[in-house]
Amino acid sequence: MSAAKLLFESGVNVVVLEARDRVGGRTHTIRNKQVNYVDVGGSYIGPTQNRILRLAKELGIQTYKVNMAEKLILHKNGKSSFFQGTFPTVWNPLVYLDLNNFWRTMDNLGKEIPAEAPWDAPHAAEWDKMTMKEFINKHCWTKTVRDFATFFVNVNVTSEPHEVSALWFLWYVKLCGGTTRIFSVENGGQERKFVGGSGQITEKIMERLEGSVKLERPVVHIDQSGDNVIVETLNHEIYKCRYVISAIPPILTTKIHFKPELPTKRNQLIQRMPMGSVIKCMVYYKEAFWKKLGSCGSAMILDEEAPISITLDDTKPDHSVPALMGFILTRKAYRLADASKEERKRKICEIYAKAFGTDEALHPVHYEEKNWSAEQYSGGCYTAYFPPGIMSQYGRVIRQPAGKIYFAGTETATQWSGYMDGAVQAGERAAREVLYSMGKISKDRIWVAEPESKDVPGRPITTTFLERNLPSVPGLLSFLGFSAFFTSLASAGLFAYKKGLVFQ
Amino acid sequence: MSAAKLLFESGVNVVVLEARDRVGGRTHTIRNKQVNYVDVGGSYIGPTQNRILRLAKELGIQTYKVNMAEKLILHKNGKSSFFQGTFPTVWNPLVYLDLNNFWRTMDNLGKEIPAEAPWDAPHAAEWDKMTMKEFINKHCWTKTVRDFATFFVNVNVTSEPHEVSALWFLWYVKLCGGTTRIFSVENGGQERKFVGGSGQITEKIMERLEGSVKLERPVVHIDQSGDNVIVETLNHEIYKCRYVISAIPPILTTKIHFKPELPTKRNQLIQRMPMGSVIKCMVYYKEAFWKKLGSCGSAMILDEEAPISITLDDTKPDHSVPALMGFILTRKAYRLADASKEERKRKICEIYAKAFGTDEALHPVHYEEKNWSAEQYSGGCYTAYFPPGIMSQYGRVIRQPAGKIYFAGTETATQWSGYMDGAVQAGERAAREVLYSMGKISKDRIWVAEPESKDVPGRPITTTFLERNLPSVPGLLSFLGFSAFFTSLASAGLFAYKKGLVFQ
Repeated sequence: MSAAKLLFESGVNVVVLEARDRVGGRTHTIRNKQVNYVDVGGSYIGPTQNRILRLAKELGIQTYKVNMAEKLILHKNGKSSFFQGTFPTVWNPLVYLDLNNFWRTMDNLGKEIPAEAPWDAPHAAEWDKMTMKEFINKHCWTKTVRDFATFFVNVNVTSEPHEVSALWFLWYVKLCGGTTRIFSVENGGQERKFVGGSGQITEKIMERLEGSVKLERPVVHIDQSGDNVIVETLNHEIYKCRYVISAIPPILTTKIHFKPELPTKRNQLIQRMPMGSVIKCMVYYKEAFWKKLGSCGSAMILDEEAPISITLDDTKPDHSVPALMGFILTRKAYRLADASKEERKRKICEIYAKAFGTDEALHPVHYEEKNWSAEQYSGGCYTAYFPPGIMSQYGRVIRQPAGKIYFAGTETATQWSGYMDGAVQAGERAAREVLYSMGKISKDRIWVAEPESKDVPGRPITTTFLERNLPSVPGLLSFLGFSAFFTSLASAGLFAYKKGLVFQ
Repeated sequence: MSAAKLLFESGVNVVVLEARDRVGGRTHTIRNKQVNYVDVGGSYIGPTQNRILRLAKELGIQTYKVNMAEKLILHKNGKSSFFQGTFPTVWNPLVYLDLNNFWRTMDNLGKEIPAEAPWDAPHAAEWDKMTMKEFINKHCWTKTVRDFATFFVNVNVTSEPHEVSALWFLWYVKLCGGTTRIFSVENGGQERKFVGGSGQITEKIMERLEGSVKLERPVVHIDQSGDNVIVETLNHEIYKCRYVISAIPPILTTKIHFKPELPTKRNQLIQRMPMGSVIKCMVYYKEAFWKKLGSCGSAMILDEEAPISITLDDTKPDHSVPALMGFILTRKAYRLADASKEERKRKICEIYAKAFGTDEALHPVHYEEKNWSAEQYSGGCYTAYFPPGIMSQYGRVIRQPAGKIYFAGTETATQWSGYMDGAVQAGERAAREVLYSMGKISKDRIWVAEPESKDVPGRPITTTFLERNLPSVPGLLSFLGFSAFFTSLASAGLFAYKKGLVFQ
């Protein structure tokens, strides 16, 4: 839609063929009496996501901050504790060193990976042959940190550490500004939501496109064998055009029959980028009971039997319609795929009762959910993942045009790939590739830097001297002799205490 | 085609909708003056592949043995050596212990995996989280064996150890009768070929089906929302039926739009089974120069810069049309995907000249090749692979019907999956599922055991006492003290010598 908008505004005749009976793809705002409106798909935005912020502002859509006034909850081994900030706090000094080293390592290695060409990273082949599970086992010495690292992968990319390439995940996190930016609410990827819902963005673009968006037109055939490109839809409509922009996830381009066939490497790539798995669930309550308990509604739930892994307050900005948003992620989305909606709702309320420590959670007034894994026209959510071995090899063709077909979609972005912001970058870049190909702009205008949003400025992510210089666990053990071991534990403990860290 | 044949013979009205202008899928026999006939796709059969052998015999197609009269060649580090048997022989006693332990471990672990339910193996979750690269690194202590294990994965499943799940690969090898059966020419999967080509099988079935096979009809839509199933093709034909059998690779079912959508788990599975990558290449010569040199034409080529990894004599059974068949596999198929046919031919002849040690290889009279990775209606060859984490979870829905759609295709087989034999098992099983659903047969007749072929009987694969009882490398090191270390090397060397093993 961002591609169509830019082309339309450049005076190009565009038609958008949309498979579903609605626009928005992986964003979807549902409206009804009980909830007013709710984003059952992509919803969160934050500082440094300047393209989606600019586009929304232009369309007259405002943002509001997700509630973070009270404390967050960490629920683990059946027990809940409060914390503040991005990550749960850590009591155990060895665990603290281990966790600090994990974030530091990921961010430092990320710096070696070129955003626009991760396959050219100095260690691309080596890291791509490694799953994130191997990476975690290599760098994390304590079970607490390995478990949290797994949770971190699950939450960020709706897939399992053993399923994804380490190169790809390091690149993905880097594109979001690093481990803190990607995971933070305040000053991070989840800081805000759109008043009225993210679905308005594509809906408002559709209005501007003045009838050029054709709904319920899944594309089944693209024929480039003649002078024009001939695009056919499932309902037998034929569209002749000079260029095509494919803005669907790479795996979904397999739904199209191509004449001539796609180039070999692209034919392989599109088989190798499955979509993550998530069920997004909103439970509605009469009142925001969590606030009475000193909780902002955000909980990180690490227990294996819990359906939901992470929650955020989903109450409207005017404090109406109190609700908790929660994600059922990856292996848990698999386990609950065949359960009924009622069953999922019940299990979710039960874990909320445990995590927030109150039976009020057992009495919702309404429930909304969306199982993205069931959608043939999304394949899954939030985004595609790369299994080991794919990015360093086939990855490099992801933005390579196939004849007159150009590729957009958030998977092709070089900032916040997988997010709404990445989708806007990708759409506008693909549109400019077409404009360049039409001779309307020069080549150096295909990629355009985006100024920072004035309404949602980002604060830089900083690290402290200690965070940069504290040893890792093996570093500690090798630098200090056995006799000095307990001394070092004590000193690390002192550092942790000074930072006020209290993770079990 | 095997499903259609069985149903047709059971008096059921069948239509086969074939996307291409030919039947056969991943088998394809080309005929021309230069080569007479040649299988550019699936070609090899051997003992224990009793279903394809029975079907071919019924259709009047005979088999012949691949030439193994002379010695095989191992080409490594630019040097060639002769050997006999399935695997290159081993001089170094430590390497011998290591290699022996690798085959033994794979075969023993394979025994723990149920052929029809690998996800129920006692260690399914653990092994599925591991890539074959991790498995190889865990079990192999010498670089020689790690390199050969990588080669073994490349050759058997046209993918890389770091791309595939250890659970899946162990299961795959087990389904082929173990490490020796899958890799052997004599008494193994590559013992024979069909006189006249494997393409005849589906061609002859097409004749028997008396016009029921419709070519150039890619299916784009399956609508199960009414009483009948409505199947629509790209050229707008509508077929009404009571049942559908999908016999295409799982990933290719993404090419079809489904109403209602596929069940969630199947929607996920079909995104997670990419096809392997291979270019099959036949070089034709005036005479079979390799035989003059004491070589049967089979070479295992382990050097990274060599395009071809393995060759077999492809001369006709009457000794006409001398030719070498060679596979360009996985990462090498990627590297050579954009090269011209002429360029590939030249590079292949150059490595043949090195491996066979004669410039005669530089002067072919003809060349045929097929790049399966480019084919949108196969996706790749030989078969689908499972990246880590998929088989133990989504794998279990692979044969689960989706409403009135039943699933065949060699990927769904429980013996020789990935081979022509698996395709026949799967097709006939799916046909019987439909017959059972129609009330024509009882449930216990869906899965039918196949008697052994009398024309191509298999000899059992045996192991020697030493192969079963020699220590692994770490076993050797831990059982013997340092002082005894060299003694043990000497005794292992004696064992190796007795077996006449001569791998570098």
